[in-house]
Amino acid sequence: MPKIVVLRWGHRPQRDARLTTHVVLTARALGASGLILSDIKDKKIKEAIEKVTENWGGPFFFEMGVPWKKSVKEWKEKGGIVVHLTAYGENIQTSDVLQRIKASEKDILVIVGSQKVPKVFFSRPVSDFNVAIGSQPHSECAGLAVFLDRFFDGTELAKDFENAKMRIIPQKRGKKTVKK
Amino acid sequence: MPKIVVLRWGHRPQRDARLTTHVVLTARALGASGLILSDIKDKKIKEAIEKVTENWGGPFFFEMGVPWKKSVKEWKEKGGIVVHLTAYGENIQTSDVLQRIKASEKDILVIVGSQKVPKVFFSRPVSDFNVAIGSQPHSECAGLAVFLDRFFDGTELAKDFENAKMRIIPQKRGKKTVKK
Repeated sequence: MPKIVVLRWGHRPQRDARLTTHVVLTARALGASGLILSDIKDKKIKEAIEKVTENWGGPFFFEMGVPWKKSVKEWKEKGGIVVHLTAYGENIQTSDVLQRIKASEKDILVIVGSQKVPKVFFSRPVSDFNVAIGSQPHSECAGLAVFLDRFFDGTELAKDFENAKMRIIPQKRGKKTVKK
Repeated sequence: MPKIVVLRWGHRPQRDARLTTHVVLTARALGASGLILSDIKDKKIKEAIEKVTENWGGPFFFEMGVPWKKSVKEWKEKGGIVVHLTAYGENIQTSDVLQRIKASEKDILVIVGSQKVPKVFFSRPVSDFNVAIGSQPHSECAGLAVFLDRFFDGTELAKDFENAKMRIIPQKRGKKTVKK
């Protein structure tokens, strides 16, 4: 199975603190291998995700401050493809874009913007595919979740995380966790 | 097809402003009929979602300030069921919980918490089902998105919104919108 890494672009530490944290947690919980917070450093988010991975397991890497151009360039040099999630792209439900992405059998860098993204993100030097999780405005967090769930055919939600200190035991009622 | 309404509980206007906005937008874009912001009013969120619905279409209703107990009671009196999204519930991937929910053929009130929810949310007087979008901590926005996408089998992303002023025409490259 190809691996997926998320590139979070346009993070503004004050305004986007919680949303970016949710994007990182979503990436981890739904099967991505790691997330790159591009162009900026945010120690609080790094600490938050490292604490989650320490308690609930991994592997999941978090990098920050890398210029987005560098990440994209290196990703492509290693043979990976780039998918840009945008409401303007090919609709994941009504087009065959997901099948074409899967058919490539390549590792995927998924770009998830915060603020309005530069025009170049839509074009070939950057993105191999522009994918819309529906053609309505909504949330990059929701979009990323649906993309990962569909890409991994749901298997990511059954994944066993390694070196977890805690684990939830699913229950019909109430909460049950075990310490390892 | 049964309808889904989202109940957002525990909203804190300062801290949760953007996240709750994303939850509301996700509800609308992924096929819910409306959202109830329980127990509190937040005019800014109301204005934001009304603007989106005015421009991009509906129908989608937004209510706020209703005590959660009242919403749940009225929902059940009308014959609906309540689904509480929580990482501690039955795993949507590894259990048959979604099949059981669908088999009920009833309208669904989906409870999405912000802060830690009251214990009673897990129990029978409130929730008919506790559903985990994976047993890992992540984001209520992501969880709601995956639940809706799986419940509607993806058809929600092809839905045509009524009375829209603007519509996106999906593109492989660039942005294209039409005014109606």
